[in-house]
Amino acid sequence: MIKYSHPVKVYYKDIDQMGIVYYSRYFEFFEEARTEMLLSIGLDYAKVEDQGAMLPVIEAHAEYKKGAIFGQNIIIHTQIDELPKVRMKFKYSVVSENTDELLMTGHTVHAFTDLKGRPIRIPKYIYSILKDKMNVNKLL
Amino acid sequence: MIKYSHPVKVYYKDIDQMGIVYYSRYFEFFEEARTEMLLSIGLDYAKVEDQGAMLPVIEAHAEYKKGAIFGQNIIIHTQIDELPKVRMKFKYSVVSENTDELLMTGHTVHAFTDLKGRPIRIPKYIYSILKDKMNVNKLL
Amino acid sequence: MIKYSHPVKVYYKDIDQMGIVYYSRYFEFFEEARTEMLLSIGLDYAKVEDQGAMLPVIEAHAEYKKGAIFGQNIIIHTQIDELPKVRMKFKYSVVSENTDELLMTGHTVHAFTDLKGRPIRIPKYIYSILKDKMNVNKLL
Amino acid sequence: MIKYSHPVKVYYKDIDQMGIVYYSRYFEFFEEARTEMLLSIGLDYAKVEDQGAMLPVIEAHAEYKKGAIFGQNIIIHTQIDELPKVRMKFKYSVVSENTDELLMTGHTVHAFTDLKGRPIRIPKYIYSILKDKMNVNKLL
Repeated sequence: MIKYSHPVKVYYKDIDQMGIVYYSRYFEFFEEARTEMLLSIGLDYAKVEDQGAMLPVIEAHAEYKKGAIFGQNIIIHTQIDELPKVRMKFKYSVVSENTDELLMTGHTVHAFTDLKGRPIRIPKYIYSILKDKMNVNKLL
Repeated sequence: MIKYSHPVKVYYKDIDQMGIVYYSRYFEFFEEARTEMLLSIGLDYAKVEDQGAMLPVIEAHAEYKKGAIFGQNIIIHTQIDELPKVRMKFKYSVVSENTDELLMTGHTVHAFTDLKGRPIRIPKYIYSILKDKMNVNKLL
Repeated sequence: MIKYSHPVKVYYKDIDQMGIVYYSRYFEFFEEARTEMLLSIGLDYAKVEDQGAMLPVIEAHAEYKKGAIFGQNIIIHTQIDELPKVRMKFKYSVVSENTDELLMTGHTVHAFTDLKGRPIRIPKYIYSILKDKMNVNKLL
Repeated sequence: MIKYSHPVKVYYKDIDQMGIVYYSRYFEFFEEARTEMLLSIGLDYAKVEDQGAMLPVIEAHAEYKKGAIFGQNIIIHTQIDELPKVRMKFKYSVVSENTDELLMTGHTVHAFTDLKGRPIRIPKYIYSILKDKMNVNKLL
């Protein structure tokens, strides 16, 4: 399992008339979180694209418990449970930084494609990095 | 069953570096579609809020088949299958207007709350309108 | 002078905690409006890019009089006053569809570049189309 | 003069088909920057609203020199030059964190209103905080 925690602060741009984060914004926070997670293990997504691969989202899901409000600091906890073969799944849970209260959960599933969007197998260097990281974490 | 089709045109604002609609934007299109669907059967969401009820999203889901591109005209087909009691589910499928090719599908589930976000039963006038519309459609 | 009127409807996605359209959203509406204006005179922006030119924004400006609210139908009036040489300026004024009340005004200025972002002169076919349209309008 | 520097990282959500930050996104970055600037001098915007005042944008302006790209770390330098009476102006300049290269500049002008959007004079405690901060900075 690979884990990563990404902090986000909520601004006016994120908030709707109900005074809470508009529901689609969390998917932007998810993107930030998975990008930083991959970077933290040595996978810079900009370089992944430079090397000819993309990870488009093929599934996105969210369940909302409580709305984050203006000025709130939230944490996007992100994890990869399984070593990907043809698809890569990230799971997210969003909590209040101060109280650790669970605000919402979600996941995204990604395919591997070439730059024209055609499906490819997971690039070897990505597989290697993920596998090494998974194994290290198992030993801990 | 209640059905509604809402056209959307894709602009630069919606498109990411891959040249396709960024994944969270479809949830904005879903919101447009369900708002117009409700309006089409006599439920103006602005008035729903004025009368003290909100329909916050408690679940959102999307599956992506093919990315819509800049300038593309797409249709958001929306439907409600079941008369809601405590939750209301909208199902969406997005197709290319020209070719009818399926681009993505999704759903959202909504709770009924008062203006402070506390759960309430479905307001009677909403239930009535939905029930009448469901029955009419059954007879057709 | 070239003129075009583009209707937009305001949804929850556009509205902030004050209950009015968040200030940056109008720039998305401006983009819709200028894209449709260009299309209306035979300039499909997707094809402009296919033919090797881009029109990146180099200046954006907005002045806000009154906030548009959820469910409101607004019109983005767009116009080009002068035949562009190296820069192209669009002026916008946003009014309520029902009352014609002025809500905000703005403008954007665009450069012509190649696909790598390097400045170029206005492509001839774009100049021709704009010139013809300007002349026709003068005669009217 | 009051100054503040706010870091932002560019993600896929911000980037358009040209591979650069979509022009309206900078206004969201501006909002983050001015919110953090105000907080840094003891003005929590959430509390400003709780105390009955709002600072809606009445003018927004941006000039774009070079586009920020995916993964780039940028700094939003923000400053207030003059003690506000009826309007408050923030000036922004956005630079690359690594190279300090100027990417774009802009400003926003804000009015003071009550919670119903009616113009008010600048609340005394806001004036005091800004005046003290301006004076301290003059002495430095």
